[in-house]
Amino acid sequence: MTLPQKLVKESLTTMTELVLPNDTNTLNNLMGGKMMHWMDIVSAIAAQKFSNHIVVTASVDNVSFSQPIKLGNVVTLQAHVTRSFNTSMEVAIEVWGEDIPAGVRYLSNKAFFTFVAMDKNGKPARVPEAVPETEAEKDLFASALRRRQLRLILAGRMKPHDANELKAIFDIEKQQ
Amino acid sequence: MTLPQKLVKESLTTMTELVLPNDTNTLNNLMGGKMMHWMDIVSAIAAQKFSNHIVVTASVDNVSFSQPIKLGNVVTLQAHVTRSFNTSMEVAIEVWGEDIPAGVRYLSNKAFFTFVAMDKNGKPARVPEAVPETEAEKDLFASALRRRQLRLILAGRMKPHDANELKAIFDIEKQQ
Amino acid sequence: MTLPQKLVKESLTTMTELVLPNDTNTLNNLMGGKMMHWMDIVSAIAAQKFSNHIVVTASVDNVSFSQPIKLGNVVTLQAHVTRSFNTSMEVAIEVWGEDIPAGVRYLSNKAFFTFVAMDKNGKPARVPEAVPETEAEKDLFASALRRRQLRLILAGRMKPHDANELKAIFDIEKQQ
Amino acid sequence: MTLPQKLVKESLTTMTELVLPNDTNTLNNLMGGKMMHWMDIVSAIAAQKFSNHIVVTASVDNVSFSQPIKLGNVVTLQAHVTRSFNTSMEVAIEVWGEDIPAGVRYLSNKAFFTFVAMDKNGKPARVPEAVPETEAEKDLFASALRRRQLRLILAGRMKPHDANELKAIFDIEKQQ
Amino acid sequence: MTLPQKLVKESLTTMTELVLPNDTNTLNNLMGGKMMHWMDIVSAIAAQKFSNHIVVTASVDNVSFSQPIKLGNVVTLQAHVTRSFNTSMEVAIEVWGEDIPAGVRYLSNKAFFTFVAMDKNGKPARVPEAVPETEAEKDLFASALRRRQLRLILAGRMKPHDANELKAIFDIEKQQ
Amino acid sequence: MTLPQKLVKESLTTMTELVLPNDTNTLNNLMGGKMMHWMDIVSAIAAQKFSNHIVVTASVDNVSFSQPIKLGNVVTLQAHVTRSFNTSMEVAIEVWGEDIPAGVRYLSNKAFFTFVAMDKNGKPARVPEAVPETEAEKDLFASALRRRQLRLILAGRMKPHDANELKAIFDIEKQQ
Repeated sequence: MTLPQKLVKESLTTMTELVLPNDTNTLNNLMGGKMMHWMDIVSAIAAQKFSNHIVVTASVDNVSFSQPIKLGNVVTLQAHVTRSFNTSMEVAIEVWGEDIPAGVRYLSNKAFFTFVAMDKNGKPARVPEAVPETEAEKDLFASALRRRQLRLILAGRMKPHDANELKAIFDIEKQQ
Repeated sequence: MTLPQKLVKESLTTMTELVLPNDTNTLNNLMGGKMMHWMDIVSAIAAQKFSNHIVVTASVDNVSFSQPIKLGNVVTLQAHVTRSFNTSMEVAIEVWGEDIPAGVRYLSNKAFFTFVAMDKNGKPARVPEAVPETEAEKDLFASALRRRQLRLILAGRMKPHDANELKAIFDIEKQQ
Repeated sequence: MTLPQKLVKESLTTMTELVLPNDTNTLNNLMGGKMMHWMDIVSAIAAQKFSNHIVVTASVDNVSFSQPIKLGNVVTLQAHVTRSFNTSMEVAIEVWGEDIPAGVRYLSNKAFFTFVAMDKNGKPARVPEAVPETEAEKDLFASALRRRQLRLILAGRMKPHDANELKAIFDIEKQQ
Repeated sequence: MTLPQKLVKESLTTMTELVLPNDTNTLNNLMGGKMMHWMDIVSAIAAQKFSNHIVVTASVDNVSFSQPIKLGNVVTLQAHVTRSFNTSMEVAIEVWGEDIPAGVRYLSNKAFFTFVAMDKNGKPARVPEAVPETEAEKDLFASALRRRQLRLILAGRMKPHDANELKAIFDIEKQQ
Repeated sequence: MTLPQKLVKESLTTMTELVLPNDTNTLNNLMGGKMMHWMDIVSAIAAQKFSNHIVVTASVDNVSFSQPIKLGNVVTLQAHVTRSFNTSMEVAIEVWGEDIPAGVRYLSNKAFFTFVAMDKNGKPARVPEAVPETEAEKDLFASALRRRQLRLILAGRMKPHDANELKAIFDIEKQQ
Repeated sequence: MTLPQKLVKESLTTMTELVLPNDTNTLNNLMGGKMMHWMDIVSAIAAQKFSNHIVVTASVDNVSFSQPIKLGNVVTLQAHVTRSFNTSMEVAIEVWGEDIPAGVRYLSNKAFFTFVAMDKNGKPARVPEAVPETEAEKDLFASALRRRQLRLILAGRMKPHDANELKAIFDIEKQQ
């Protein structure tokens, strides 16, 4: 049986939000937990579009928050599937902050979420094979294997010496 | 100058939430992003208690969602600082789900968040040295170094060959 | 038939909340109604834990708001069952405010909520007998009778001359 | 100096709300805490209208919840000041539930909230004297004294033997 | 068959809201979209009361926002059915803002929403004929025809030359 | 002085939302008022991007709700400025619903919102001239004049006989 295929770009999802008072801490910056709530929604929709199934969050990779987003700023989140694995999909998300009156736009965050597709009975469902087209999509497709091994090791579900791509993590800082 | 010290347990914070309809996906399970929003709040409060400063989320380690929490269940989150590093603190969080009428309680998640303490001018502030007492606290204190190196490598701020505890990651599945 | 028993402390529930902008009035203090919303949730969970049943709020005793809680402060609510009456339970709640950067923690409120346990058909269900252990728990257990009589009289369901513990209300200010 | 006066009816405030999924417990009934949140807002607005000042909640009298309100029903809350005392006002609130398609409307609750008027510096401010007109308004005006004494005794701020109207509480069930 | 009739005033619905921080833009004014959300709820309840049916929003006429409402102000919305058309009803809404401490009350907006009544199977249901009593009610009843024709033309469901009352639009500014 | 110019497409803004339980009526359809709340936010952001100013909603044109959007569906809103007038901008919004597991996507709504740009002192600010490029953009640019005249007439700020493009409204159903 041939696997169905789907282009990575068919899953592209854009979400725009305004930072309101209840989303911020006492320094008037967007709280990290609120941003992750939005990341989860936009990436779940990307995974739904890719699989045409309901999806559940399986894991979230390390996220670091370097650039705070201020009250009143506009947040744009863009998500797309990078690669699929039988019943799961990795989604890459970029978060941009924008102070529009000041004409300033900045990358706030990058993250990877993983989702499992579910059929109507709540059982994992097969998803299409992801087909990357651009150079950036191909890089993310290739590095997805390495991130998956790290995820499995961190979850205690893979032994390090079985992870052939594991050594790549030692090079990870060159690629991000 | 001697560093001030503080017991790990002085930061212990407990949060209890009810899973309401708007917190769930179409399978009636708590959405991963909502859970991370709560994790961020409870761990920020633990870091505030430890440092007596306003804190901002610096990073979130890999989180995997194995056990879904259902609509109407009670969620209990417990957080405490594991170790501090000059101006930052690592916080460990455990999330428990509970179907009280059914008498069922289960561990849903474990996670590590990192926070930076901020003074009144929005500059990073020194935090006390963390003092673990129990065996579990001492284990988390010791392994915090290794998690920190992985975090720095993943963020591209440390070269792998400088990470002396890095090899410990190959053993991480034994300890969690 | 011997009644099942349960320790008071098995119902202990702790909830922690951050005071966000939408929770406050124009003086930047937590609104009384929002605090009562949280009190209702934490005490309903305590009553659920005690009875292993879904519960519905039956009544709220007089609450007075003496100490305002400010925007950005942390609110800690602690609730436990004090005594049970066939199908209902009284829950005592304490609310603490905390300005963590300033190192100030203060008792904001005390209150008593009453809940009825419901079975799956929405009918009142028997609950265990409450067993107090500490002196404080025993005092609350004893005074619960008097508060119950006042509640029944205020709801028009008991005649004052039938309330043998009623005269105790004249002494209530000595005990709180 | 003559005290300014204001008619009770000038404070009348009506609020209408729809019971949405997040407002209900697992039995699909409006949660008691949510109802008290709405009661607090509608009665605070009534007290604002009466005093032309910002107000803060000082206390809530016993509330009993007899008639549950269902998901999708309409809730109507009506509040007006009953009597004022220097810088504070008592507000009476009635809560009605309505299943409009079924043509059913029912009284769900009655309650009394007390508010203190605040000037711009956050100090208590004098409020007008309340002038009742109808029989119902006059009854509530008269019985306000008795409720106030009970409130002060329950808060430990009045000795029972100083409360001349206190004995009226023994008759309270005749009047509600 | 004679049509059932209902007085316009039987549908009168009043809603009161406080403008909270999350409802406002960066100028601290109530956002237009939030106001329209409230308008939709209050007018849907008025249409429910009139028809004793669940209703769905069919259309919203032009709304212009002239007078901004400030953070902390009280918003009062009043809605009533003006006229019915088989299975649909037009509802008129007035929105008032009030800065109570300043003693200022002002008309912020007027709008017309249209609703369709639905039976239990989700099919449009007949509604009573509306009976206006006051002069203002009679004016709104009469002009409802003209607004309906404009609505149908704007939705592309009526040809202009079939709209006999259409020319009245040229006079509309005299009447509002 | 030459007016600054900006391409229409520079204002394009996409927003994606999930329909959650609290957003729906008792028929499990997205409430009209909630949809208008989202329309207001996405179009305000488009107008901000176009003008690089804070903006306030000035008016909303007739909106008709033909195609209901169900609970759990994904809503995509796309907005861009069509034309500017000194200090105001008209924004066109399209709302799409999507039942992703069923593979169904449908146009739910079209609407026009108007915004005024504000400078830091809360005074209206000049905005760039809009430059349409595609045929669709040019059509919307041309028809914006006619919609503006209707808006001014409906708001009672223009006399019908001064509206030279007014007669175009009689042809409006051919163009939408």
